[in-house]
Amino acid sequence: MFDNVGIIGVGLIGSSMALEIRNNNLAKSVIGFDNDQKSLDTALKHGVIDGYGSLDELSICDFVVVATPVSSICDILKMAFNKLKKGSIIIDVGSVKGAIVKQIKEDIKQDIYYVPVHPIAGIEKFGVEAARKGLFNNAYCIITPFDGINEFAQKKVENFVKALGMRVEIMDADEHDWVFAYISHLPHIIAYNLVGLIEEKNNEKFRFIGGGFRDFTRIAASSEKMWSDIFLLNKKSVMESIDEFIGHMNRLKEMIQKEDREAVMHYLKRARLFKESIDER
Amino acid sequence: MFDNVGIIGVGLIGSSMALEIRNNNLAKSVIGFDNDQKSLDTALKHGVIDGYGSLDELSICDFVVVATPVSSICDILKMAFNKLKKGSIIIDVGSVKGAIVKQIKEDIKQDIYYVPVHPIAGIEKFGVEAARKGLFNNAYCIITPFDGINEFAQKKVENFVKALGMRVEIMDADEHDWVFAYISHLPHIIAYNLVGLIEEKNNEKFRFIGGGFRDFTRIAASSEKMWSDIFLLNKKSVMESIDEFIGHMNRLKEMIQKEDREAVMHYLKRARLFKESIDER
Repeated sequence: MFDNVGIIGVGLIGSSMALEIRNNNLAKSVIGFDNDQKSLDTALKHGVIDGYGSLDELSICDFVVVATPVSSICDILKMAFNKLKKGSIIIDVGSVKGAIVKQIKEDIKQDIYYVPVHPIAGIEKFGVEAARKGLFNNAYCIITPFDGINEFAQKKVENFVKALGMRVEIMDADEHDWVFAYISHLPHIIAYNLVGLIEEKNNEKFRFIGGGFRDFTRIAASSEKMWSDIFLLNKKSVMESIDEFIGHMNRLKEMIQKEDREAVMHYLKRARLFKESIDER
Repeated sequence: MFDNVGIIGVGLIGSSMALEIRNNNLAKSVIGFDNDQKSLDTALKHGVIDGYGSLDELSICDFVVVATPVSSICDILKMAFNKLKKGSIIIDVGSVKGAIVKQIKEDIKQDIYYVPVHPIAGIEKFGVEAARKGLFNNAYCIITPFDGINEFAQKKVENFVKALGMRVEIMDADEHDWVFAYISHLPHIIAYNLVGLIEEKNNEKFRFIGGGFRDFTRIAASSEKMWSDIFLLNKKSVMESIDEFIGHMNRLKEMIQKEDREAVMHYLKRARLFKESIDER
């Protein structure tokens, strides 16, 4: 499918993608780029990449995956647009899309093909050590085309992510950011806040934490670098979702305050039924 | 250990307790009491209980477990104090303790021994169908003695829950309710609210919900009857915990608003480190 694939950022997503590319013979070679030499050494040692290089050598790649924290994606894309040879395809796999496309739109070159991609395939572990085969299997992959995207390149990227086992969905980039504020960024904020609250209370009796709480805060073990970047880059929608959530908390609190048992039960039941309908999908 | 054990309320906890009592030969017979005949039939059919009766016959039991929703525990305890024969022991297994003990304290009889118990062993499933062996294995069981509790009866209950595989902890009843507001009731309120918010938004794009969100909202599938009772009975501490949580949400929101990356990262990191310290316990 490709000659030399470059993976910029050999973290969980970059490394797992490299593994799948090699396993499925989607490229002649997979080259890692990362400013952390230890990650590159580990990736090479575990057969995640065929070799590594410096970004000055990026032009040997005809397909590049930018899998760095979202705060650096724009700078790396701009740099890559200047380095890559004509006809190369470059994708980023950041979990924020509208904000990134907006920031780099002016810099996109006509003959280097950029396609914004979001594979819904994170887990709370991070780094090359967490790389795993099958991470993308049956996962959704959202592509957010912009005005003037090269349709041939988009098609090729769609085929690439399908070859990794993913299901392609097309979405508007701004709508993507709004949707993921609610279903992904807000849940992380909530988990971090609950764990933060319990930590600050610092009460030794809190050791009776049960299984429910543990599962609930599993995602609070995610990379703080990655998530603070996401929250800031998707600031507008994230803040909207926080406000709406607090509104819901206050509504339920008021029902409890008034001891309105019927209203509380009705509210909880709706949530349970919806939860069950999600699980059936 | 006992002759006839009565289980009032053959739901998840009551039925699972009945199963363990029978498996460990802790009683000559286990008798179920429930106003839902179907639950009793199921419990009998699956060998959870040896038989069932009406509450008029409760006096044949020398040991009674009240495992009904917390809103009915006080009434059932008061009724039982009047029916049981001298020397009987009765426990309730409600997840709220201070509020219950307060409400029934005046009615406790000198020669019928009441011991308030909270086994930390819930799962999100409910009803007799969810009953399972091993539910209590290695779980904490909190006993909240009150002034004037019969120490011999308390010791016997401690030995009973140890025989079910649990680890006994002693706590003040009001402190218990405060602690569990934070580590159990608040997480449920949050989960219900997040799922409720997503449901009300009713956006078909929310189908891209990932694994993180699913785990997170697992507890929103819990029994709304049970949880609305708990929230109302533990109203004071629950409302305090909601307020504190909202305060934390607003603090993080302000950091995001100011785009204070360092503060956000520091806050998330503290939460992650605490989360990891919990997991190591």
